[in-house]
Amino acid sequence: MSVLNIGIIGAGRIGKVHAESISRFVSDARIKSIADPLIDQKGIEWAKSIGISNVYKDYKEILNDENIDIVLICSPTDTHSQISIEAITKGKHVFCEKPVDHDVERIKAVVDALSVNSHIKYQVGFNRRFDHNFMATKSIVEAGKIGDLNILKITSRDPAAPPVSYIKVSGGIFLDMTIHDFDMVRFISDAEALEVYATGGVLVDKAIGEAGDVDTAVVTIKLSNGAIAVIDNCRRATYGYDQRIEAFGSLGQVSISNDTDSSAVISNASGVTAEKPKLFFLERYTEAYVREISSFIESVRTNSAVSVGIIDGLKPVLIGLAAKMSLIENRPVKLLEIEQKYGL
Amino acid sequence: MSVLNIGIIGAGRIGKVHAESISRFVSDARIKSIADPLIDQKGIEWAKSIGISNVYKDYKEILNDENIDIVLICSPTDTHSQISIEAITKGKHVFCEKPVDHDVERIKAVVDALSVNSHIKYQVGFNRRFDHNFMATKSIVEAGKIGDLNILKITSRDPAAPPVSYIKVSGGIFLDMTIHDFDMVRFISDAEALEVYATGGVLVDKAIGEAGDVDTAVVTIKLSNGAIAVIDNCRRATYGYDQRIEAFGSLGQVSISNDTDSSAVISNASGVTAEKPKLFFLERYTEAYVREISSFIESVRTNSAVSVGIIDGLKPVLIGLAAKMSLIENRPVKLLEIEQKYGL
Amino acid sequence: MSVLNIGIIGAGRIGKVHAESISRFVSDARIKSIADPLIDQKGIEWAKSIGISNVYKDYKEILNDENIDIVLICSPTDTHSQISIEAITKGKHVFCEKPVDHDVERIKAVVDALSVNSHIKYQVGFNRRFDHNFMATKSIVEAGKIGDLNILKITSRDPAAPPVSYIKVSGGIFLDMTIHDFDMVRFISDAEALEVYATGGVLVDKAIGEAGDVDTAVVTIKLSNGAIAVIDNCRRATYGYDQRIEAFGSLGQVSISNDTDSSAVISNASGVTAEKPKLFFLERYTEAYVREISSFIESVRTNSAVSVGIIDGLKPVLIGLAAKMSLIENRPVKLLEIEQKYGL
Amino acid sequence: MSVLNIGIIGAGRIGKVHAESISRFVSDARIKSIADPLIDQKGIEWAKSIGISNVYKDYKEILNDENIDIVLICSPTDTHSQISIEAITKGKHVFCEKPVDHDVERIKAVVDALSVNSHIKYQVGFNRRFDHNFMATKSIVEAGKIGDLNILKITSRDPAAPPVSYIKVSGGIFLDMTIHDFDMVRFISDAEALEVYATGGVLVDKAIGEAGDVDTAVVTIKLSNGAIAVIDNCRRATYGYDQRIEAFGSLGQVSISNDTDSSAVISNASGVTAEKPKLFFLERYTEAYVREISSFIESVRTNSAVSVGIIDGLKPVLIGLAAKMSLIENRPVKLLEIEQKYGL
Repeated sequence: MSVLNIGIIGAGRIGKVHAESISRFVSDARIKSIADPLIDQKGIEWAKSIGISNVYKDYKEILNDENIDIVLICSPTDTHSQISIEAITKGKHVFCEKPVDHDVERIKAVVDALSVNSHIKYQVGFNRRFDHNFMATKSIVEAGKIGDLNILKITSRDPAAPPVSYIKVSGGIFLDMTIHDFDMVRFISDAEALEVYATGGVLVDKAIGEAGDVDTAVVTIKLSNGAIAVIDNCRRATYGYDQRIEAFGSLGQVSISNDTDSSAVISNASGVTAEKPKLFFLERYTEAYVREISSFIESVRTNSAVSVGIIDGLKPVLIGLAAKMSLIENRPVKLLEIEQKYGL
Repeated sequence: MSVLNIGIIGAGRIGKVHAESISRFVSDARIKSIADPLIDQKGIEWAKSIGISNVYKDYKEILNDENIDIVLICSPTDTHSQISIEAITKGKHVFCEKPVDHDVERIKAVVDALSVNSHIKYQVGFNRRFDHNFMATKSIVEAGKIGDLNILKITSRDPAAPPVSYIKVSGGIFLDMTIHDFDMVRFISDAEALEVYATGGVLVDKAIGEAGDVDTAVVTIKLSNGAIAVIDNCRRATYGYDQRIEAFGSLGQVSISNDTDSSAVISNASGVTAEKPKLFFLERYTEAYVREISSFIESVRTNSAVSVGIIDGLKPVLIGLAAKMSLIENRPVKLLEIEQKYGL
Repeated sequence: MSVLNIGIIGAGRIGKVHAESISRFVSDARIKSIADPLIDQKGIEWAKSIGISNVYKDYKEILNDENIDIVLICSPTDTHSQISIEAITKGKHVFCEKPVDHDVERIKAVVDALSVNSHIKYQVGFNRRFDHNFMATKSIVEAGKIGDLNILKITSRDPAAPPVSYIKVSGGIFLDMTIHDFDMVRFISDAEALEVYATGGVLVDKAIGEAGDVDTAVVTIKLSNGAIAVIDNCRRATYGYDQRIEAFGSLGQVSISNDTDSSAVISNASGVTAEKPKLFFLERYTEAYVREISSFIESVRTNSAVSVGIIDGLKPVLIGLAAKMSLIENRPVKLLEIEQKYGL
Repeated sequence: MSVLNIGIIGAGRIGKVHAESISRFVSDARIKSIADPLIDQKGIEWAKSIGISNVYKDYKEILNDENIDIVLICSPTDTHSQISIEAITKGKHVFCEKPVDHDVERIKAVVDALSVNSHIKYQVGFNRRFDHNFMATKSIVEAGKIGDLNILKITSRDPAAPPVSYIKVSGGIFLDMTIHDFDMVRFISDAEALEVYATGGVLVDKAIGEAGDVDTAVVTIKLSNGAIAVIDNCRRATYGYDQRIEAFGSLGQVSISNDTDSSAVISNASGVTAEKPKLFFLERYTEAYVREISSFIESVRTNSAVSVGIIDGLKPVLIGLAAKMSLIENRPVKLLEIEQKYGL
């Protein structure tokens, strides 16, 4: 079987993560090219060190290379949908970082491009689906070990708030942060959101409020299977990245806790102290990133369905928009309302 | 100092719990009389065995006994407010089981009776405030160890649903079950509820739905200190009585877990298995009941403020009514709306 | 059925614990008298407050009272065997605090007294057998859930070393502290010690070494069922009273951990911190003391075998003497050696 | 700086582990050659797939290649010392799997070869020193967080006994299995063993006893810093690979527990069940193997001291021989006795 050639668009933090995952763990695939308008000498050296042959400023060099089979879109969010459509049109399989876009119309354009290029594999980068803990939760729920799902609780808190400059272009907490949790709700429950009620506050940083966003939120979602999901978010948890799930059902409950660097527990006159959770997403989801990209390349290689498709990219955005409307109008918002607005 | 004489009205399960707590752990107080229209020979023998001198059918015998200092009202809920007022009028200190009533007007009548008998100690039986775990949580929050409260999460699930006959007279899940959690929200947060959004479903037993109630619920509460509380309830948890709290704030988080009969953990080919939580409230809150009643008697003895007063009995009912309205009308309901309705 | 009359000899800490356990939790039994040559006015008031009619200086007043059915020996260790024999001779049922004696000959004298008074119930105060955690461990092992026992590990550490004055009369660490663990080995394993190897050091307090004792020890015991037990002791654990067991067998393992005052866990920038173990034996074994004394009184009432008999009092002393010899001579010592020495 | 060329001798399980670790995670080093007399077509393909240029039957081809800087000895134990000496003589830096040998004289020959080739880096494959949990323990002890070490407890149990054919050539449990724990004692305590007492039994498989070995053992070690170490081993733990440490000292305790595949905990009517420990050493120590080999290559690259030298390879063998003698002669054995026997 021939080696798959990969081009990576965007050589920032996440582009590098995927490049290294592939170079270390994926055989029969090689990263042929990487493109980033801002790449510097250090970036070029890094690319060489992991065996990438070509380094470009312009991503079109990658799209125009007939020998490239797969494109990874790791550029800024506002370029995702445009590059996705170009890549699809050029016949490339696409792995696109989340979110595909904050704008539903632009995601719909990607859906349309895919519908006329149905042989293209298109995966959205919801990395948490590949976390060992969330995967275990999913397996247990799917295997019926907790019976019918009744209540799904997701805790998702960042160690520290990003700069307000980031907040301003983030699309707001629901499209930037909670979007992962909306995906997780769909992943674990295997059901769709029907109605969303969101509440929130500015408890971490007033500047976030001044930027028109909240930094703390609780979102309740009624699901199509009758279960209720509830998500709590905060932009700051002093003890680190807090990512937990409890799925409660008719036969029992499964819960997962945070990962730590070690299981060391110190007992002394001050108490019995374990380690804090791993610092942030790069630490917590290191292995998940490997599994994610390996899964996508395997889908291409075996011509099988991707694990996180374009619809999985669209739905959390719709839920996020419903949450945003709910917060602003202080009322539960039906997904149908959002869907109708966008002719879905 | 003279021995305090106690009369207990109601010799059901909870009346017996308090009687035994007092006889074992409270010195300088004695249960002089107990009254229950349904008391049988076995009950009379039990009363004698713990040294109760008088057993009556009619609770008025207790109220008319001038030597009785303290009355414990452990009769059915719909008699609480009436007996409370009679006892207050007779100059008795009153410990009244929760809830004081489901009807706000009747609670207000107790408030009024107390306002003209201001020397009377009146405590409401929110036993969870005396649980070692919840007390520890309260202390930690109060001491500022988690900073300002941001999110308060309460899990409260019963091991099994009560009979539908009980559901029908229970006042509904929010006044019957969540009411404890509403009290816990006030206790831990030291803040008042401003607005409530409740959602729920019938996921355990259709008959509960037919009786006009839900058996599974998630309630979100905006608090006067800016924090958000979220409670999840279910009438059935196969693994036992699930009563947990997480309080998350600007400096960290405190969480408590369930108690078990022992810390034994078995590791074998099936996994690493710890015990289920203690079965139900009598098992979980055994010591809390002792602390609760001791605290009340101490308040009487030392003429100091009770730890759970009539307003603490009223507020959770108001929150419960807001939750009920929220569920029915599918919208967030302000407490102010409920308070204005009742002229509060 | 008639009420059992109890006399308590020794009104120190442990005598008071038993008195209060009985007065609170044991019905159909009453403490008629207590004797202590050092009892003061405060002690007399305490005795009255829990309903004890007679307070004596001389324990013989209790032994001579024909209406006393049961005697609790809570006096200093060096009086246990003598008072035991007197009480047995007077026809009293006896609960004797551990150890019966440090001297094997004197324990044998009690065995002899019991053999000619076979109707007498005689229980030795190994309270840990009644701890909820150790009971759970025992049940699990007994039920075969870990299969055949292979390795039994006991951790037993005190929060702080006692004064050297106490050490000097304690009989040494093995007869004073490890003796509880030797009993636990027999209790959990349901087997007898065949050979003991003890090693130890003076790591806590040089004065303990100067008094001829060690303060830290590890004892390995070969058991009659082929299993190996290993105990580690220290006179000082900064984090509190550390009392744990791991029983490992052919089908798995059961382990128990320490009890805490609450399950509160604080997560902050310093880590994830749970509470220290309960401070010391009175806190850890509060309920065990109630079960212990209740069990004994129940044995008397129902004329059934006691749960911890005189042989259970003798055996740990023999193991302790073997450990002592092992430490001094730096070699494994067979129990047979000790038994032969004492003609057992 | 030039790329280091590596030759691997032995293409069995552990040789492959190191090859893959290097190819994935070590930059500026490449595996030039691998040699194994038994390598088959599948092995050759595997070697090509990770970019190894040369595959030999005869390891001398590697030793004779002047361009090879580093040799990894992953061949059977009885060839380790001989190949080590040859490689050292040829000027290669050597990473040798544990144990260097079971025979002290042959290890001494390696020590001698190194003493006349003092520029050679020689590391012994005690992988557990690179486990995140054991490293954390070491750091905490070294940082003084538990004060002076008093008691060091190591639990080390395999999931299932190896075939008796393996047992027969294994050197016995102390040189085959406990040797890792002896290393761990030295690693964590930073002290040397003075005296060893070992006891053991045949509780898992009679055939192991017939082969002259035990399958269950408890070893107590007196250390040069006054602390006492105790190790318990078993060849079979139904719940998986059990590798834990407790280090107890004057200021507190640190303990580590086993790793699991996920943190999922299922609560249902049967209890509250977490996952079993990771299956065996390849699963538990995956990352440790990467750190181990990376550390060695870094030592070569920077000409700095290796983390586990030849003396660290020798000492555990001496402790193992002392344990063997202790078991046979049923007495504590001083290390001095063993050292004098070998003129050390």
